[in-house]
Amino acid sequence: MATAVGKKFPNISVNAMNDMGDTFQINVLEEAVNNKKKVLLFWYPKDFTFVCPTELHAFQAALPEFEKRNTVVIGASVDSAEVHFAWLSTAKDNGGIEGVTYPLLADTNRNLSEALGILDSTEVYDEETQTISKEGDDVTYRATYLIDEEGTVFHEGVNHMPVGRNVNEFLRLIDAYAHVQSHGEVCPANWEEGKEA
Amino acid sequence: MATAVGKKFPNISVNAMNDMGDTFQINVLEEAVNNKKKVLLFWYPKDFTFVCPTELHAFQAALPEFEKRNTVVIGASVDSAEVHFAWLSTAKDNGGIEGVTYPLLADTNRNLSEALGILDSTEVYDEETQTISKEGDDVTYRATYLIDEEGTVFHEGVNHMPVGRNVNEFLRLIDAYAHVQSHGEVCPANWEEGKEA
Amino acid sequence: MATAVGKKFPNISVNAMNDMGDTFQINVLEEAVNNKKKVLLFWYPKDFTFVCPTELHAFQAALPEFEKRNTVVIGASVDSAEVHFAWLSTAKDNGGIEGVTYPLLADTNRNLSEALGILDSTEVYDEETQTISKEGDDVTYRATYLIDEEGTVFHEGVNHMPVGRNVNEFLRLIDAYAHVQSHGEVCPANWEEGKEA
Amino acid sequence: MATAVGKKFPNISVNAMNDMGDTFQINVLEEAVNNKKKVLLFWYPKDFTFVCPTELHAFQAALPEFEKRNTVVIGASVDSAEVHFAWLSTAKDNGGIEGVTYPLLADTNRNLSEALGILDSTEVYDEETQTISKEGDDVTYRATYLIDEEGTVFHEGVNHMPVGRNVNEFLRLIDAYAHVQSHGEVCPANWEEGKEA
Amino acid sequence: MATAVGKKFPNISVNAMNDMGDTFQINVLEEAVNNKKKVLLFWYPKDFTFVCPTELHAFQAALPEFEKRNTVVIGASVDSAEVHFAWLSTAKDNGGIEGVTYPLLADTNRNLSEALGILDSTEVYDEETQTISKEGDDVTYRATYLIDEEGTVFHEGVNHMPVGRNVNEFLRLIDAYAHVQSHGEVCPANWEEGKEA
Amino acid sequence: MATAVGKKFPNISVNAMNDMGDTFQINVLEEAVNNKKKVLLFWYPKDFTFVCPTELHAFQAALPEFEKRNTVVIGASVDSAEVHFAWLSTAKDNGGIEGVTYPLLADTNRNLSEALGILDSTEVYDEETQTISKEGDDVTYRATYLIDEEGTVFHEGVNHMPVGRNVNEFLRLIDAYAHVQSHGEVCPANWEEGKEA
Amino acid sequence: MATAVGKKFPNISVNAMNDMGDTFQINVLEEAVNNKKKVLLFWYPKDFTFVCPTELHAFQAALPEFEKRNTVVIGASVDSAEVHFAWLSTAKDNGGIEGVTYPLLADTNRNLSEALGILDSTEVYDEETQTISKEGDDVTYRATYLIDEEGTVFHEGVNHMPVGRNVNEFLRLIDAYAHVQSHGEVCPANWEEGKEA
Amino acid sequence: MATAVGKKFPNISVNAMNDMGDTFQINVLEEAVNNKKKVLLFWYPKDFTFVCPTELHAFQAALPEFEKRNTVVIGASVDSAEVHFAWLSTAKDNGGIEGVTYPLLADTNRNLSEALGILDSTEVYDEETQTISKEGDDVTYRATYLIDEEGTVFHEGVNHMPVGRNVNEFLRLIDAYAHVQSHGEVCPANWEEGKEA
Amino acid sequence: MATAVGKKFPNISVNAMNDMGDTFQINVLEEAVNNKKKVLLFWYPKDFTFVCPTELHAFQAALPEFEKRNTVVIGASVDSAEVHFAWLSTAKDNGGIEGVTYPLLADTNRNLSEALGILDSTEVYDEETQTISKEGDDVTYRATYLIDEEGTVFHEGVNHMPVGRNVNEFLRLIDAYAHVQSHGEVCPANWEEGKEA
Amino acid sequence: MATAVGKKFPNISVNAMNDMGDTFQINVLEEAVNNKKKVLLFWYPKDFTFVCPTELHAFQAALPEFEKRNTVVIGASVDSAEVHFAWLSTAKDNGGIEGVTYPLLADTNRNLSEALGILDSTEVYDEETQTISKEGDDVTYRATYLIDEEGTVFHEGVNHMPVGRNVNEFLRLIDAYAHVQSHGEVCPANWEEGKEA
Repeated sequence: MATAVGKKFPNISVNAMNDMGDTFQINVLEEAVNNKKKVLLFWYPKDFTFVCPTELHAFQAALPEFEKRNTVVIGASVDSAEVHFAWLSTAKDNGGIEGVTYPLLADTNRNLSEALGILDSTEVYDEETQTISKEGDDVTYRATYLIDEEGTVFHEGVNHMPVGRNVNEFLRLIDAYAHVQSHGEVCPANWEEGKEA
Repeated sequence: MATAVGKKFPNISVNAMNDMGDTFQINVLEEAVNNKKKVLLFWYPKDFTFVCPTELHAFQAALPEFEKRNTVVIGASVDSAEVHFAWLSTAKDNGGIEGVTYPLLADTNRNLSEALGILDSTEVYDEETQTISKEGDDVTYRATYLIDEEGTVFHEGVNHMPVGRNVNEFLRLIDAYAHVQSHGEVCPANWEEGKEA
Repeated sequence: MATAVGKKFPNISVNAMNDMGDTFQINVLEEAVNNKKKVLLFWYPKDFTFVCPTELHAFQAALPEFEKRNTVVIGASVDSAEVHFAWLSTAKDNGGIEGVTYPLLADTNRNLSEALGILDSTEVYDEETQTISKEGDDVTYRATYLIDEEGTVFHEGVNHMPVGRNVNEFLRLIDAYAHVQSHGEVCPANWEEGKEA
Repeated sequence: MATAVGKKFPNISVNAMNDMGDTFQINVLEEAVNNKKKVLLFWYPKDFTFVCPTELHAFQAALPEFEKRNTVVIGASVDSAEVHFAWLSTAKDNGGIEGVTYPLLADTNRNLSEALGILDSTEVYDEETQTISKEGDDVTYRATYLIDEEGTVFHEGVNHMPVGRNVNEFLRLIDAYAHVQSHGEVCPANWEEGKEA
Repeated sequence: MATAVGKKFPNISVNAMNDMGDTFQINVLEEAVNNKKKVLLFWYPKDFTFVCPTELHAFQAALPEFEKRNTVVIGASVDSAEVHFAWLSTAKDNGGIEGVTYPLLADTNRNLSEALGILDSTEVYDEETQTISKEGDDVTYRATYLIDEEGTVFHEGVNHMPVGRNVNEFLRLIDAYAHVQSHGEVCPANWEEGKEA
Repeated sequence: MATAVGKKFPNISVNAMNDMGDTFQINVLEEAVNNKKKVLLFWYPKDFTFVCPTELHAFQAALPEFEKRNTVVIGASVDSAEVHFAWLSTAKDNGGIEGVTYPLLADTNRNLSEALGILDSTEVYDEETQTISKEGDDVTYRATYLIDEEGTVFHEGVNHMPVGRNVNEFLRLIDAYAHVQSHGEVCPANWEEGKEA
Repeated sequence: MATAVGKKFPNISVNAMNDMGDTFQINVLEEAVNNKKKVLLFWYPKDFTFVCPTELHAFQAALPEFEKRNTVVIGASVDSAEVHFAWLSTAKDNGGIEGVTYPLLADTNRNLSEALGILDSTEVYDEETQTISKEGDDVTYRATYLIDEEGTVFHEGVNHMPVGRNVNEFLRLIDAYAHVQSHGEVCPANWEEGKEA
Repeated sequence: MATAVGKKFPNISVNAMNDMGDTFQINVLEEAVNNKKKVLLFWYPKDFTFVCPTELHAFQAALPEFEKRNTVVIGASVDSAEVHFAWLSTAKDNGGIEGVTYPLLADTNRNLSEALGILDSTEVYDEETQTISKEGDDVTYRATYLIDEEGTVFHEGVNHMPVGRNVNEFLRLIDAYAHVQSHGEVCPANWEEGKEA
Repeated sequence: MATAVGKKFPNISVNAMNDMGDTFQINVLEEAVNNKKKVLLFWYPKDFTFVCPTELHAFQAALPEFEKRNTVVIGASVDSAEVHFAWLSTAKDNGGIEGVTYPLLADTNRNLSEALGILDSTEVYDEETQTISKEGDDVTYRATYLIDEEGTVFHEGVNHMPVGRNVNEFLRLIDAYAHVQSHGEVCPANWEEGKEA
Repeated sequence: MATAVGKKFPNISVNAMNDMGDTFQINVLEEAVNNKKKVLLFWYPKDFTFVCPTELHAFQAALPEFEKRNTVVIGASVDSAEVHFAWLSTAKDNGGIEGVTYPLLADTNRNLSEALGILDSTEVYDEETQTISKEGDDVTYRATYLIDEEGTVFHEGVNHMPVGRNVNEFLRLIDAYAHVQSHGEVCPANWEEGKEA
């Protein structure tokens, strides 16, 4: 199947939770199009693991930079909204993510992660019992999507479970794309805002 | 369909060309597994466009860094080997890529790019003539794959046509994955070799 | 589709977590058959909700009674093992289940809950996008299974989300079934061990 | 297939008999919705067996309690209305159920029990004769359904043939659900009306 | 579909009950072939109806005549063995069939009556709910089968519900067929044993 | 497939012949419904056989009795109208049926006998030639149908080739059914008009 | 579908009757091949019609001529062997065919006439009742087949119902074919034995 | 498949040629119906063979007889109109058919001969190459059709390749059919116009 | 579908005729491979048309040139061998091709022309009659094939009906291909033997 | 599949490039029909090969001759427009095609070459991986199409990779067809404008 890049982001609403304990629904495509914002959506495998938190804190720390670039940050996993809130309420020292203020998608029914093809499971058919089961935990890889104000995906990146992300690289990609948006030119490699294109 | 991450890279041989004008076949999976090397495979849309060359030169400049990391660099597009050679023989000042020494895949029959799902075309069926045609030029997005010594993909990144890549980010991802390989730990965000994990 | 009662329990292995933070696999059918034990398996919708814990504590409190009856107690939800451990490590006063010693299944890939038909979601097909999505959170109802030493289900009970269970009723059902097992007679209504049948 | 819990009860009319020898039709869903009553529907395998009667008498004895809770009691098996009447006319001492006043469904064509999935038979296909036959007597397990005033099932319990039911447990479940209906809260385990929730 | 006449009787075992309360299995085909007997199998709609008993008593009264003709008599309905026994134990004055000594098939799963095509129900498909249900009570018409010592059906008669049978007519049919068996001639109409053929 | 009893008789017109040599069409269903008559339709295997005639003569002799009961008698075989006339014109002494005045159906195309399932042939598929042929002569068994004034079949009887019919039994069945029609009661076994029901 | 000419005659056995009243089976193909004879097989619509007999008598009269040419004559219709015998026993003056000595096929099950495609009926499908019935009497046209000693058909002629045949024309066709068989030349039009070819 | 007799002739237009070298289209069905004429259509295998011409000349010689009977004569083969003209222009002494004045169908695309089933080829499927080819030359047998003024076929005759036709026989068949048309009687065998029927 | 160029010529045997009147079979593929010859196969629409002959004479005149180049010339149309011979026997002045000595394929059954896709007809399906017929005469375009000694097609050219061929161009193509065969170089445009490549 | 000759050219728009570096779309069919011009469309395998250029220069040199004949020349390959421009900008001495002024189609998505069936690849299905891949480079053979002012193809020629074309032959074919267009006659072989037809 083809990459999500160059197409509209899937038009799917997902449960979400924030640090206030509010439960609500987010449709990423509408978030971009209706608010004329860019969106950075990043997925991680599971709540309450000890390494992931560093990524969530790193995105939190960079929030002002994303805002400067008219970009909304949204985190996502397949854990429930209740679990998200429990983690958001756990102190950083205890492996929690207290202090994170951007919303977290609770894609428990995998509607969105399935559409994006970023789950780590494969369906296997058992001839004997004539049933289909899943091999793997059915949680998501570390996938990141950059979506523009029209809802079009302009970057898709997927890291294997143990490989963390570099927040600055996403800022660079947003700058590069914004440069193309305003200057209508193809962007050179390694280009960074402020440098000569 | 699911991402390539976490699975073996497709077992497909593709024509390739180098700066000596040699035509040969490269099977990326075997390149990794047989030589116990990591592979960075990067795709660009078309030869003889004026911006792409900067990416190809950037990868060339960073070649020693990739070699230090036991990593082979391979470029790829759907142009023919003859066209690759013509471009490799064109001076940088004339929009060419003279000086590039890593091989370029010539995936004219799209066997590999189709398997990876990175072509910019969609099949459309014309009811009246009962024929299938392709919308779009059927060339590849700027997709990058990092493959480990077992042939498993540990990073997949796809940029929309006009968004260039950052070579340093791929060095960082390789370092992060190598760190996990030797230390067996999950790698924190923004981590870079030499920093504390 | 037919009830699970009167048939062997599904032969499926599921991730599990206990209060020691150990991750392991449980196959409920083998748990019963290999150890010649009865099994009580109970499902609840989600970790970190504020009412459910009372059920988990109630089963913990009754554990000696189940052991007397050669019965293993297993809890289950679709949350991950990591989330189970976080909850197991949270004090009762904070809405946690600290003190629970029986294992909890982490059926993240829904292999077992799907086989039992106890998820709250329904598949809906969207004509326009030709995709299937799930309506509902895809978490389990409060379902309880009593399985005998041969692996045959002799009771299946499903409560709607907000309706809690009565632990004593399951002890009574186990006694009634055990009475039939040793006396070969059909058991009268409201019968309880010690009363005249 | 999924449990009946959380969905509307099947919209099916079934023959019924009462102690007056009247034959009529009962649609359980309409019974609940049209009369704004809860319904307890319980199934037993066969008329004229010697143990079942105790269950039927127990439900009869508890009838005032069910009425207090705005709940209609209906019994059901796959025997015919004529057989029900013969049993209703047989004295308790002779293994009959004389004195039972709630109606009994006569689901001879299995329309309802098939829809609920509570029959003890499995279809087997004989390759040689190319015919489908049923293994098992095609009678129902001891299944119980609690249905609310909207027609939604809020409890489904199935016992293997020889395991009798506890009438008080159903009163407790109705109370718990009624508590949720009026207080809008999730009900703790082992909760009983009058206790603190 | 074609009549059962001229073919082997279906090779199907069915539960049966006799006046001793014994439960056993009868395979009508084997009953004929293994014992080198003719079989008269008669079906009636339901136990515990007030008119049917006269038929069952009539066959009982004629039993010596059937025995003289090497013919086994078997009754059958879709009621359970338990119900058969209750009816067999009910005095004739109370609408029972006390005194009947031939066995009664309890075809609760309809395996045999379905194969013979003598059930009064029709399957109807509900477009809206996509379910199949049965119209009619799914009980049998008054069907009678005469089977010879090879298991071949030589008479099939089906009466609508309210039309009773004439036992003498079946004796006449057996005599006529026996006459053909020993004389090898076609039997004239209205022929009776003792008359000139 | 199900018996014809309890359903409308098939709505099919068939060629017919009478003793005047007239060729016309009979639709048995309309014969009953339009004329508000009962119909007795009897089938025999073949014209010009030596035993059958006795049946045809027997029905002729009883014609006044059938008329008294508002019942039309129709004979039927798969022979042509021309053959029927030849047989009707042949003297009884020569094996003919001269004197028969009721009409005879000439179901040469088997439209009606196929619908009733009373032909003695079975289709066999020859793998080698990929053709279907018929085993057996494709003539009818001795089948008899009693149809009421609404066109509903209330008796179906099928005798194997050599077994003749008893005309009085059909008079009895008609009387029994007429008794039910006017008295609305189920008819006892061996019942005959004039006896106590 | 293609004509029977130029192919082997269908390998099908059919009941037959002769003037002695013997019933036997004839396989036309074997009749030709095993006896090294030519065969003339002619079909007519129905026994006991008043015009057909002239054709049957004409073939009888020409029998010596056919025998001279090593040719067996066989008649055929879809009437039964019994009807054939009745007709064979009826005097010519009464519309019978007394005196005919060649055998008559009784293709009651239409196995052969169906394979030859010479029946006058067409299958029609009734949408409403979902049944297939036949339009037409399902009797044969006046078809004639000439078969050589290898079983190959060398002439097929079909006349509409009312058009009689010319026996001499078949003698001429046999002579013409025999001429080709011995002289290996193509035979001129209007050619007759004795004339110059 | 069924014979063409008793049905309308296929409604198909075919190229034709006459002795003037005119190319035109003939629709045999319309030729009959529109002009209220009978049609004799005869097929032969191939132009420019040395024996066939005698048939074509024989039909030419009998043309006045056919005209007297209101019958149009048409010849036909699968050769092209150009080849027909070449043959029509070749002197009789050179194996040509100079002098023939009736038209010749040029059924090069086999539309009509395929519909009549008179081609000598069979389709064979080659498993290996997955292609269908034809065995045989795909030319027509010597088939003759007599069609009445309504377009209904009343005679179909097919001769194997080497067997010539008898023109007088077709005159006889036309006379016989015309006799039936005007006298409404079935025509005796060997009947000829002028003789007593 | 793909062109025949670059693949083996179809492995099909076809009837053929030469100027001696001999009928034989030619398999073009074997003609090339078995004799280690090149083959030029040219198709024309129909025999006995007035313009085509010039092409056939032109190929005849150039025969020595083809022989010098180890090339066999074969003509082909869908006319029969008999027609070919008639044309071969017709003087050039009368529009014949007397003097042509190379063989002519008689592809009457279109096995080869169908496989090559060079027939001028299209299949059309008539909804009403549910039959497939052909639009067009089903004759071939002016197609030419050059086949090498391995049986591989190295040129395919198809001209619309009225456009004649240039024999010299085929000699040039053969020379060009032969040059490549011996020199292993790609051949320049307009190249001719003797010129500098 | 059938040749393109005799049918309309496919109605497909393709990217194109000219020597000015303009990118635009060409629909060959509309080019012919809208401008009332003939079109010569020629395909070659790949840009930047060393022999092909001679063909492209030869067509350029003959451009005035094509214009005289109201014929547009268009080149085509599956290379991209950017590559075409790079080649158009490369001097003849360096293997470029500088000086070519007719447009070049850039059929990168193979929509047109696929429809014409002139690609050198074949699809192969890999049983093991259940994927389809292409064998061959998926580039075009040297195919040439001549299209008239109605858009109908009147010549199709395909040369194997190494066989160059003769520009004069296409001029001759255009003249021959134009001659037929104005004179309505079939054109003799080897005919050239100015010679006698």
